Amino acid sequence: MGRIVTLLTDFGEVSPFTGIIKGVIKTICDECELVTISNDIPSFDIIIGAYVLRESYKYFPKGTVHLVVIDPGVGTKRKCIAIRTKDYWFVGPDNGVLWPAAKENEIVKVYELIPEKLSKNVSYTFHARDVFAPAAARIAKNENIKNFGKEMKENEITKIKLEEYAFSDKFGNVELPFQGMYEVVYKGKRIPPAKTFGEIPEGEIRAIINSRGRLELAMNKGSAYSYLENPLRINIDGKEYVFKIKFVG
Amino acid sequence: MGRIVTLLTDFGEVSPFTGIIKGVIKTICDECELVTISNDIPSFDIIIGAYVLRESYKYFPKGTVHLVVIDPGVGTKRKCIAIRTKDYWFVGPDNGVLWPAAKENEIVKVYELIPEKLSKNVSYTFHARDVFAPAAARIAKNENIKNFGKEMKENEITKIKLEEYAFSDKFGNVELPFQGMYEVVYKGKRIPPAKTFGEIPEGEIRAIINSRGRLELAMNKGSAYSYLENPLRINIDGKEYVFKIKFVG
Amino acid sequence: MGRIVTLLTDFGEVSPFTGIIKGVIKTICDECELVTISNDIPSFDIIIGAYVLRESYKYFPKGTVHLVVIDPGVGTKRKCIAIRTKDYWFVGPDNGVLWPAAKENEIVKVYELIPEKLSKNVSYTFHARDVFAPAAARIAKNENIKNFGKEMKENEITKIKLEEYAFSDKFGNVELPFQGMYEVVYKGKRIPPAKTFGEIPEGEIRAIINSRGRLELAMNKGSAYSYLENPLRINIDGKEYVFKIKFVG
Repeated sequence: MGRIVTLLTDFGEVSPFTGIIKGVIKTICDECELVTISNDIPSFDIIIGAYVLRESYKYFPKGTVHLVVIDPGVGTKRKCIAIRTKDYWFVGPDNGVLWPAAKENEIVKVYELIPEKLSKNVSYTFHARDVFAPAAARIAKNENIKNFGKEMKENEITKIKLEEYAFSDKFGNVELPFQGMYEVVYKGKRIPPAKTFGEIPEGEIRAIINSRGRLELAMNKGSAYSYLENPLRINIDGKEYVFKIKFVG
Repeated sequence: MGRIVTLLTDFGEVSPFTGIIKGVIKTICDECELVTISNDIPSFDIIIGAYVLRESYKYFPKGTVHLVVIDPGVGTKRKCIAIRTKDYWFVGPDNGVLWPAAKENEIVKVYELIPEKLSKNVSYTFHARDVFAPAAARIAKNENIKNFGKEMKENEITKIKLEEYAFSDKFGNVELPFQGMYEVVYKGKRIPPAKTFGEIPEGEIRAIINSRGRLELAMNKGSAYSYLENPLRINIDGKEYVFKIKFVG
Repeated sequence: MGRIVTLLTDFGEVSPFTGIIKGVIKTICDECELVTISNDIPSFDIIIGAYVLRESYKYFPKGTVHLVVIDPGVGTKRKCIAIRTKDYWFVGPDNGVLWPAAKENEIVKVYELIPEKLSKNVSYTFHARDVFAPAAARIAKNENIKNFGKEMKENEITKIKLEEYAFSDKFGNVELPFQGMYEVVYKGKRIPPAKTFGEIPEGEIRAIINSRGRLELAMNKGSAYSYLENPLRINIDGKEYVFKIKFVG
């Protein structure tokens, strides 16, 4: 089997764009294996895209190329980049969407992609087809990236802070950016801890540690996301925080 | 090509969970081929999940491993199981979702999965990642299941009855749990039979035999699902039935 | 790697139909690689299906088999067909959905599929399972199509005209069926040209050339689709046109 190229986009499930980039990759690298993470990231939502990438990238085999296209700035001067990390490659626009995942895995080198070396006619509006997909496919084929990219410095790329957000899954469980259990107070009332969803009384809210080791507010057969105000003002171990809650579902 | 592992979940199209289990499987079994049946089963809907599985499992090559994660009871004491049938493997929670398909294909052996033999740190809330996906991947790799499962008796697993439901497809055609054609009376009026959708007069309802050989109520350019009351009280060959209609679309 | 079979259907993301045809193909042709273009074409929408196919088919490796099932006429006398073009195969119902793509790539031969040579029991309502998927899989396996198809004339197949429609992507950008830039007047007012999305003033509409080289109406951080009337009466280079806008998103 060839290398895996994962896809994470905001193209939606109907558009031809998904088929186009799959075709481009398979035409360049027929031994590659395409694995879709999601094509349904809300339009232009770099925060949700970066979150879904950071949560999933690390479960793939080493060497996997993660291709991400959530690109509100296409056609502006934002760069196209590829990041080599300890175990993976990340390819996409330089708008921060790649950064939290790449940072976590340790960035080894950053390259600016040179569009003209990736397509004869680079469009203004579809770099996924003309730049990102060809770059991902050629990296997956083990071509030397210097053929179509030039090194840049890590501190030149765009960064975003996922720590300013809480994330609700489709079941309404709201994850906060803290590892482990904390004292949680919402609207003056303590939210008690629980170990599993099953031990939460129906209709009540509890703090649990979720499967990624993070603090999460959850209800049994109910939605903490609907229950909580957004933005969420919350007191964690005696300190006030405000999080915008993003719904990932 | 390696073995196929199919995925059937209620994770939705946006969440990182789908990418995570795909990554887990490919990391353990790089020669496996992932085939998605659906990631859009309505949240926690074991009935629709069991129905979609039973309708589709049998078209896959023998030896296919069907991984199903619709798991409202995660974190409670419900077991994690793998079922070997005549032609397939089924892996998922012991809540009945696997049962109608496995039963139809003839159950050969049932195993309770031992979580600690599948992951070092088993979470309370994400057995898909920690138990089901590793089990499916190791079965697909032909590892002996006794390394991570212990035999249990078929009569110990949870069963559900799909026969208590009718199922509408996205086009509004409502399938009833009867093989072949019957006399159908709804609200005192006979629903006449038809052979194809094409011969149904526009706006009228007819009974047809669908592609799975079952009795189905259909309208031409209309939705029988919208037309019929839910729950559906209906008279089949002179006998009264009540079916909850589940919308699969 | 074996040949690619792409899937383009209106089955939706929940139904068992997608899993069924994937299983049928893999059972016949285990070396084939399945690539989904979309399963979310709006029900029965031949126009959107034909558009998505025409926009994406050509990016796939030569020899790819494109399987399309948008089939409102299943069970009527519409034919099942396979089209061999210069670089690809197209398989689906003879309702026009294949035609714009096949025509563009140059039609070499057209075959009527013989259902009884593809399945023992051909259903009235699910030719995807019984006719199209087996035909696509056997073509991908390099079987001689004369075993299950008979040649017919190109002028006997159904044609549709995509040129009567405009197509909006999910971001609300509306593509018109003209290559290149034109003078555009809407409701007596000229819509000025722009080169990229980025240079469009917020809330204003501009004419751009999109990534497929076509004339497109776009707004920066807004939806031209919501802004324009549908059907769209528009003056292009001094001539009046009316287009029904189809939303592909």
